[in-house]
Amino acid sequence: MVQRVDLTPMMKPKSVAIIGASRNPDKVGNVILQNYVNAGYEGKIYPVNLKAEEVLGFKAYKKITDVGAEIDLAVIAIPAPAVPLALEQCGKAKVRSAVVVSGGFAEIGETKLQDKITEIAKKHHIAMVGPNCLGVMDTRSKVDTLFLPTKKISKPKVGFVSFVSQSGAVGSTVLDVIAGEGFGLSKFISYGNAAYVDEVDILEYLMNDDETKVIVLYLEGIKRGKEFVELARKITKVKPVVVLKAGRTSAGTAAAHSHTASLAGNYAVHEAMFRQFGFTVANDLSELFYYAKIFASETKPQGNRIAVITNGGGAGVITADEIASSRYLKVADFETDTKKALRKVLPALVNMSNPLDLAGDADANRYRYALDAVGRDKNTDMVVVIILYQTPGADPSVTNEVVQKKITLNKPLLVISTGAEYTKKQVRLLEERGVPVYESPIAAIDSLEALFEYAEYKKRSQSQ
Amino acid sequence: MVQRVDLTPMMKPKSVAIIGASRNPDKVGNVILQNYVNAGYEGKIYPVNLKAEEVLGFKAYKKITDVGAEIDLAVIAIPAPAVPLALEQCGKAKVRSAVVVSGGFAEIGETKLQDKITEIAKKHHIAMVGPNCLGVMDTRSKVDTLFLPTKKISKPKVGFVSFVSQSGAVGSTVLDVIAGEGFGLSKFISYGNAAYVDEVDILEYLMNDDETKVIVLYLEGIKRGKEFVELARKITKVKPVVVLKAGRTSAGTAAAHSHTASLAGNYAVHEAMFRQFGFTVANDLSELFYYAKIFASETKPQGNRIAVITNGGGAGVITADEIASSRYLKVADFETDTKKALRKVLPALVNMSNPLDLAGDADANRYRYALDAVGRDKNTDMVVVIILYQTPGADPSVTNEVVQKKITLNKPLLVISTGAEYTKKQVRLLEERGVPVYESPIAAIDSLEALFEYAEYKKRSQSQ
Repeated sequence: MVQRVDLTPMMKPKSVAIIGASRNPDKVGNVILQNYVNAGYEGKIYPVNLKAEEVLGFKAYKKITDVGAEIDLAVIAIPAPAVPLALEQCGKAKVRSAVVVSGGFAEIGETKLQDKITEIAKKHHIAMVGPNCLGVMDTRSKVDTLFLPTKKISKPKVGFVSFVSQSGAVGSTVLDVIAGEGFGLSKFISYGNAAYVDEVDILEYLMNDDETKVIVLYLEGIKRGKEFVELARKITKVKPVVVLKAGRTSAGTAAAHSHTASLAGNYAVHEAMFRQFGFTVANDLSELFYYAKIFASETKPQGNRIAVITNGGGAGVITADEIASSRYLKVADFETDTKKALRKVLPALVNMSNPLDLAGDADANRYRYALDAVGRDKNTDMVVVIILYQTPGADPSVTNEVVQKKITLNKPLLVISTGAEYTKKQVRLLEERGVPVYESPIAAIDSLEALFEYAEYKKRSQSQ
Repeated sequence: MVQRVDLTPMMKPKSVAIIGASRNPDKVGNVILQNYVNAGYEGKIYPVNLKAEEVLGFKAYKKITDVGAEIDLAVIAIPAPAVPLALEQCGKAKVRSAVVVSGGFAEIGETKLQDKITEIAKKHHIAMVGPNCLGVMDTRSKVDTLFLPTKKISKPKVGFVSFVSQSGAVGSTVLDVIAGEGFGLSKFISYGNAAYVDEVDILEYLMNDDETKVIVLYLEGIKRGKEFVELARKITKVKPVVVLKAGRTSAGTAAAHSHTASLAGNYAVHEAMFRQFGFTVANDLSELFYYAKIFASETKPQGNRIAVITNGGGAGVITADEIASSRYLKVADFETDTKKALRKVLPALVNMSNPLDLAGDADANRYRYALDAVGRDKNTDMVVVIILYQTPGADPSVTNEVVQKKITLNKPLLVISTGAEYTKKQVRLLEERGVPVYESPIAAIDSLEALFEYAEYKKRSQSQ
């Protein structure tokens, strides 16, 4: 498969033209220009505006051909009927990529207008994303074509998860949640009607992108089935892909069609394909987040045996139930040496079994003893740490112990913690320092299972 | 079945003695007394302390028999070996109920000591909860025997959900989450080793309690199987019961045994029994919360047909998928009149189908039109409102519309909303004003299904 388009100029542009950059703060073109300024984008910025001499302090140009310099990315935010001419001029100015945020194309039946801009983009070799999309964000190059009210959406920190969404609204919600979760974003791409650049182009780019370690994908339809399958076969050998495919049922399929005119296809066929190629399949937005989170934490499991450390007996029981009723995971059987080591340091009340119930008065010392022992235990492949911060001994020093251990431990580790204000503060600290935290045993164990399944898939596919 | 004990003196005491009330702020007895003061408990308080003349400004007594007044509840927080004598003295003082928070009984093998206090309680007709428990809280009478650090646990507001937990740690976590969620609590009972008062006594009390409209139950084992089944048959005819039973698997069963010495029994048998009697079965703590939330919102569904109103097409598709893949629910087919009414007021772009996608620029007016039409629609039994607050038009005025509509609408309504700071603030406002909010379509649709199943169960059981 030959790469059709290169998205590098779009994600790492040295220069950006904003066609429709307006002096009116209510206009999309103004919001986008302001976003570039706010984000601290360091490349050249060229507002294009038929009337104004200057916009937000930048010299403005009547046409993009007036700029007279190399332009990597043109963001187009003008009424649909004016887009073809603007794109033609981008072609003349040798613009390398374009994001058409404007709506008013196939999604309202204007397929001819859409076909026209696709033709122009192809003719001039412009990597065009859109129309009818939010566009792209790159937390490193500070490209940001998203015309969203900044007060309503928190900005994610720099990280290694890239998110691809056909739907703009789903995309903006995901972006906001990722920011709230405290794990980092690499790239965000909302590609709307996919008139030219589609999911295959984007996935191919992200597969080869060193700044992307996890790909998260929200799909309504797949445009080029054959190419998608060809790429799917390759991509999961390189990095994990989490996918949420809408249209699992006929009701959903009908809704997807009326949303982005996507042909959702037969979900069972899609799901079988995803699973065959080692994709992690989410059924819900919440699952997208929790799978993304565990993959972002990076450590690979060597096996399926889980140790559970807890300061709440009941929570340990529920978690053991989840592990035992999962498809592939097992409650680890600690080595005799581990039990002996723990016996020496833990109070007599503590039972040396798994889940290891450190009791309601457990403090940072007990967690440290347990984490050290379980870290060395050869029968343990992954570690679940339950911290009920409502108990007297669970305080910031327990948070610190877990953060420290996460750094040195060569096994996947996650925390389960649920609660209100006090707990949320500690959870935030854990996540900011690289420890994935889950509110419920189900979410946590599903995530470890996804991590294990992907590791197994990779082993199998590499030994073939 | 004759009621063995009456928990009224424990939940609504006119007078409370705290045995072991200490002047030392690190002692449990001090924390409990302080809690009564902080909560604004209006009954009489009698600290019992061998040495002190006064504790926290209250006159102290050497023995409970020295008080010389009626005592409804004795909270016992002294070392285990001293508990039998204290209980005997409670008997002499004609104390009506006792909460033994002290540990050091059956959970560490001291079964004889435990049997001894059970005998004493029975002999003197003292309704005894514990030992080894957190005890009870009643948001109305302001009884609060929980010895938990207040800075770590938010206090729930007054409401109609009562929570029963054998496990103290699970209980304290649930309490904290309920406070964070913004839905109200009626009573909280953590009953520990269940030496005398057990789940059957507590459920029977809550069944007849007008301040309890939803019962949420975390169980590890069931002590009196026959009586439990007899009560189960009756209780769900009166009010919904959500149950999480630990020990679903052999790993969980083993963990439960080492936690509270409970014999978890065969889960499949328990689950079949729960379902037969119309209990809502949760598999996880998170499910307990979201089932409790929908039942707390009270409106009963007349059928299984769901309308989905959304400002994000993708989220609508995912929700339609969830509905269609549920066991009993259906995506509603709007009446022709509904579509006509909507056609008149909604923009041409909006498709008059279900999910009703109001588009990314939907504002409060569009939500109002949609809610009005769907509220009247005879083919709609329940309403899901998706609000992606990241979009420009979704602001506090949309929140207000939904809150207003919830009050007048005679159909169950919930909101799905996900996001970071801005969204969380709106979610909080919705929940405080009685609108249940879910982060994910799966949780929301599972909850509506539970509501529908319970309504159907009640219809069936009443027609028998």
